[in-house]
Amino acid sequence: MAIGFVSLVGAGPGDPELWTVRALRRVQEADLVLYDALIDADALRGLTNARCFCVGKRAGRASVRQETIHRLMIRAARDGQRVVRLKGGDPFVFGRGAEEALALAHAGIPFEVVPGVTSAVAAAELAGIPVTHRGISSGFLVMAGHVGETFDRALDNVRPNSITLIVMMGIAVRDHIAARLVAHGWSADSRAALVCGASTRDEWAWTGRLSDVGSATPPQGVPGVMVVGEVVQIREALEAARAVGSGADADEVKYGGHR
Amino acid sequence: MAIGFVSLVGAGPGDPELWTVRALRRVQEADLVLYDALIDADALRGLTNARCFCVGKRAGRASVRQETIHRLMIRAARDGQRVVRLKGGDPFVFGRGAEEALALAHAGIPFEVVPGVTSAVAAAELAGIPVTHRGISSGFLVMAGHVGETFDRALDNVRPNSITLIVMMGIAVRDHIAARLVAHGWSADSRAALVCGASTRDEWAWTGRLSDVGSATPPQGVPGVMVVGEVVQIREALEAARAVGSGADADEVKYGGHR
Repeated sequence: MAIGFVSLVGAGPGDPELWTVRALRRVQEADLVLYDALIDADALRGLTNARCFCVGKRAGRASVRQETIHRLMIRAARDGQRVVRLKGGDPFVFGRGAEEALALAHAGIPFEVVPGVTSAVAAAELAGIPVTHRGISSGFLVMAGHVGETFDRALDNVRPNSITLIVMMGIAVRDHIAARLVAHGWSADSRAALVCGASTRDEWAWTGRLSDVGSATPPQGVPGVMVVGEVVQIREALEAARAVGSGADADEVKYGGHR
Repeated sequence: MAIGFVSLVGAGPGDPELWTVRALRRVQEADLVLYDALIDADALRGLTNARCFCVGKRAGRASVRQETIHRLMIRAARDGQRVVRLKGGDPFVFGRGAEEALALAHAGIPFEVVPGVTSAVAAAELAGIPVTHRGISSGFLVMAGHVGETFDRALDNVRPNSITLIVMMGIAVRDHIAARLVAHGWSADSRAALVCGASTRDEWAWTGRLSDVGSATPPQGVPGVMVVGEVVQIREALEAARAVGSGADADEVKYGGHR
């Protein structure tokens, strides 16, 4: 039997319309899809006849161990199957995608990586916030919101208030993150935004000041990003311009998802 | 006449298979597509009956002024047309996308943003380099390679050798960038990679040390990114694992583009 093939595929922020064309094709042609908890399982099953298994963490259930995921992929590929490992966002941004690639390479399994739209950029974007903007921010720093020594060390590496900061997977500990930022010299008055569930029906956004993120009330259990920096004002500028430009009440604050 | 609609669309790193499903749909349904120089014009014209105009910088010709692009979009939308503004990568990463969004909002034109796969992540990824990796890099910094005061100021904000650094649009001045990094305290021995034309037929990658980037010979006129950081070794680890795992000669160093 010919050996199979594994595609490590990024599914983007949530909406299957933000999958890449290649991601869609791979899923449609797959025999087996191993998907993360953030994937829209109903949409996925509507798009493919492949067997689909959730290997991510779901409410009340532990996630499948990383080594088990490796074993499942390798076994299916050795069985001649076309395997899609479908991951939220981009597989190489906090996705352990490269660990899976290494496991496949070691096992002699042919594979590819299919980049996805990363939530690091898209979540803010869909709320009207660009991670870069002329005269405001000429770069951006992405980190994971796992508060602790690693987070503090990472903050030590960056001059406070200097650049757009994007913290992924930190919504639940947003007040701790804000406190650590202020302890590291960031201004409590820095503009900040929280964006959860970007591109999904749960999309929710908040803007304010770094000192106030604790008082924001994001939906529970919906992943999101925290953005700190002056680029957050672009969202307000867009709303103000839209209110003037259209003459209408502009309380619609989503910039994606038009159908 | 009903007013039209503008979609600010990211086209990803190059290969139209890395467009999002929504990007493809918008282009197929468009009346007018205004595209940047990095877009594959032949592929674009094969996908749509829309009128397609290049508004980007092409060899020997100046690019259309930003204000002119705004005017073209606004006029066509007021004419009732469905306009796609198609930009390389993601429209809100060094894409002036938010400037265009503001111009549309001011003019009262309804619009949306369609995020794309950003080359900031995908270029390295398609060469086997993850921007984050457990135990090696817990974050990444993206900046533009416009060497000068802004670049130096940006470097001042980051502790040398601390994080994965991705420099976009800097291939032509890679030796200047390396010199500025070393002047700012980065080790000349830092691992570095150059990736040009990711996902296109011109794809080219090089890995080595920061001090050697000047001796690399990337293809001329093909855009790319420079990556500095220990994550560059993952590419070598993947190659070594693949050579052992498959028993084959592993000089194939592309991880995307499998068809």
